[in-house]
Amino acid sequence: MTTAPTADWQTVAALKRDALSKKIPVGWRIPSSILDQVSETSTLNVLNIPRECGLLTEQELELTENYDATALIELMSGGKVKSYDVTLAFCKRAAIAQQLVNCCTEIMFEEALVRAKQCDDYLANEGRPMGPMHGLPISLKDSFNVKGIHTTIGYVSFISHPPATSNSVLVDILFRHGAVFYVKTNLPQSMMTADSHNNIFGRTLNPNKLCLTAGGSTGGEGALIKMRGSVLGLTTDVAGSNRIPALCNGISSFKPTAGRIPFGRKVPPGRVGSPGSILPVIGPEGHSVRDYELFMKTTIDSEPWDFDENTLNVPWRRVEPFKRPLRFGLIKGHPKRPLHPTIARTLHSAATLLKNAGHSMFLMDEKIPDLWDNALLTWKYFLLDPKRTPVQYVNASGEPWVPSIKTTAFPELVGWQASLDDLWDMNVARAKVLKAYHDLVVENKLDAILMPGYQATAVPHDTFGVPIYTMLQNLLNVREGHC
Amino acid sequence: MTTAPTADWQTVAALKRDALSKKIPVGWRIPSSILDQVSETSTLNVLNIPRECGLLTEQELELTENYDATALIELMSGGKVKSYDVTLAFCKRAAIAQQLVNCCTEIMFEEALVRAKQCDDYLANEGRPMGPMHGLPISLKDSFNVKGIHTTIGYVSFISHPPATSNSVLVDILFRHGAVFYVKTNLPQSMMTADSHNNIFGRTLNPNKLCLTAGGSTGGEGALIKMRGSVLGLTTDVAGSNRIPALCNGISSFKPTAGRIPFGRKVPPGRVGSPGSILPVIGPEGHSVRDYELFMKTTIDSEPWDFDENTLNVPWRRVEPFKRPLRFGLIKGHPKRPLHPTIARTLHSAATLLKNAGHSMFLMDEKIPDLWDNALLTWKYFLLDPKRTPVQYVNASGEPWVPSIKTTAFPELVGWQASLDDLWDMNVARAKVLKAYHDLVVENKLDAILMPGYQATAVPHDTFGVPIYTMLQNLLNVREGHC
Repeated sequence: MTTAPTADWQTVAALKRDALSKKIPVGWRIPSSILDQVSETSTLNVLNIPRECGLLTEQELELTENYDATALIELMSGGKVKSYDVTLAFCKRAAIAQQLVNCCTEIMFEEALVRAKQCDDYLANEGRPMGPMHGLPISLKDSFNVKGIHTTIGYVSFISHPPATSNSVLVDILFRHGAVFYVKTNLPQSMMTADSHNNIFGRTLNPNKLCLTAGGSTGGEGALIKMRGSVLGLTTDVAGSNRIPALCNGISSFKPTAGRIPFGRKVPPGRVGSPGSILPVIGPEGHSVRDYELFMKTTIDSEPWDFDENTLNVPWRRVEPFKRPLRFGLIKGHPKRPLHPTIARTLHSAATLLKNAGHSMFLMDEKIPDLWDNALLTWKYFLLDPKRTPVQYVNASGEPWVPSIKTTAFPELVGWQASLDDLWDMNVARAKVLKAYHDLVVENKLDAILMPGYQATAVPHDTFGVPIYTMLQNLLNVREGHC
Repeated sequence: MTTAPTADWQTVAALKRDALSKKIPVGWRIPSSILDQVSETSTLNVLNIPRECGLLTEQELELTENYDATALIELMSGGKVKSYDVTLAFCKRAAIAQQLVNCCTEIMFEEALVRAKQCDDYLANEGRPMGPMHGLPISLKDSFNVKGIHTTIGYVSFISHPPATSNSVLVDILFRHGAVFYVKTNLPQSMMTADSHNNIFGRTLNPNKLCLTAGGSTGGEGALIKMRGSVLGLTTDVAGSNRIPALCNGISSFKPTAGRIPFGRKVPPGRVGSPGSILPVIGPEGHSVRDYELFMKTTIDSEPWDFDENTLNVPWRRVEPFKRPLRFGLIKGHPKRPLHPTIARTLHSAATLLKNAGHSMFLMDEKIPDLWDNALLTWKYFLLDPKRTPVQYVNASGEPWVPSIKTTAFPELVGWQASLDDLWDMNVARAKVLKAYHDLVVENKLDAILMPGYQATAVPHDTFGVPIYTMLQNLLNVREGHC
């Protein structure tokens, strides 16, 4: 599975980083006067540097800052803007972001510009766009396969793997519809912490304040999108990985129901064949809800079940917005992870705004099963592998664990190893939680549940801890938007 | 869970049988001259006895023999026939069937006739039928809960359980749409053999020839429906239980995809919380495909996901019949269970008829994964419980195992007990099978697969063995009709 490294892990990782670094054209380098201020202990906010550093033209600033994906596709499909120019703008801005917040793992600028030209030529020759994603640069988490590109997912031992020989199923689908892939993004070693930090690519920093976490596991995307080095990114989520980076960086995301978006031909951080009841999900991070609808509709209209045997054969259904007032469930949090004032205020503001708009709130805290217990149960599903495959992947190179691994653990589960018998009992416990929420939603005719994604805004590196709020949606397998 | 019996198991079981027997009105008893010929070693065909025994009126023969469920509902909804008369006819005929082939576990004739009268009154008072199942007598496998009625599922130890305090979710739904429940039907001890035989109710016989098996696990339904003591029955299927009785008795059935029909509030034969990848399914046995469509549409249009948290929230979709020729995959069988001449001939005839009608056949035998290995893998999922809960249920009363249990086993799996590690590997193996079939279907644009449900027609009692052909659909979780 992994071959023993021929050199020490530091050398192997440094070579990989150098190769990545060399993919940034010299002309796109940020002056050292700025870079010297960048460190993981700095309180610097780097959001204005793309605008201030002088590397981007006015048009490039305009294209990267003023549109969502839907608007950009409309411009490109109508021939008003070239995909080449949009792609070049996002490549440059991603290069700037990379130098500031270390968000990328693979740079595919050259391939992307060739591809963008193809899209432009197609439009010119055929008189119509390539598809609903025509010409759009899309960034993706490192765990997606792009043919010819490495998929190391932050394990040093995976550097010896050959480049991907085929695209992930979703990459194939979006490519067919006109997408341009230009950069893969950083994630945590093992993908099971909220700090996007590993021994190959290092740590992704939060562009709002470098000493804070960018979240994870899709934290490279979160930071890149916040920097507007990407307008739409492909992420995965099994415990909060699509939502934590959104709330840490200040962007938005959408986690669909498991099985809606094809998961085929991705590289997993652990053993395949889990008998757990919690399935990883692919979803978008970005800037606008209509972009997520475009992403979902485009993917599902492609009949992805023909390309992935584990994707639900369920057509896209458009639900007309309700004319009646909505009924929201409201969860205010758990005493073991009480909300910081900023989050409590935000939640209160959201609820108040909704109530003022005529919608109603149903307070659920006293009625739901214990959130901490549910999180603990969810976490157990991630510890089911008796072979501890991620440990093997780490040990194969001799690399150490990144620091956040030990801060992302339940003390109750130290040394815990499931038996097959435990797993039956876990499933019974999960079924009770599912039924409790189901009955609350049905009996109170709830349209949605409003709750915190975390007790705080972005926290200092390596202190995020266990994500008890986001895991609830994974345990229940409900869809969730984090905006 | 089960209390120790206060009397020996034989006495407890005999009392339960007596109570059942007393529910058959004296006037509906078959003369002993006929009953004396009934035995599990007899070669008698009893299909004509309902007509010949003189207990049914001409109208009762007409109502039970000449219509499918759709037609009966049409007659009742249009006021041409009363539900009371239809229900009485099926109650009488079920009573006759019970005396001949021992297919029932619970008789609810009195309750059913009261209910039928309600349906008739509703129509008279409201001027419209109660719903799409208006007035229809429906039979159900013993494992469904009907409020106030026992659910013993053939375990002597379950006789001490109180009657059901609520209906199964599906029973509630169909009841709301006008169904009349009048009889529950026999099944095997543990539900994991194809002989519907247990130590409470004894053995269901095949009405075509009493010395043959009626199949299982929904064999009581199969025999009752073949006797036309029911027009539509509710069944379950995790290895062939909905389809084996259909092929043994000569009726038809439909096994939907798991999660389409709500499974909530049924009584399972083993431990709940299985981490296995193979889910039990509810489906109908009956006489006509349009009845199955009616059943599926009625259930799914009821938005069953509101009543059962494990039911897929996927609306009913009507697919217009294709105008183009269809492409069938054809599987001819496995050398370890070669087809008997009758089945080979039937399969050949079906394929020939389809080809003559312009459809095409794609022979799959050389291309599919080994059917025996797949069946073995499927069976392993049924052996995952380290607590061996069915053994506990049997031992609790001191009853012995029925003979077919030992003939329904893979020699490869004697003494086998899964570890959690094995389960990961099993899931990987299953994923490969799933992908192999998926790719064959997609690449060859197959609309359906034609294959045997079993190597033979109905076999002598206790000789059915492992159902290698029907389990494939459970492993793959595809829908299947057996007609």
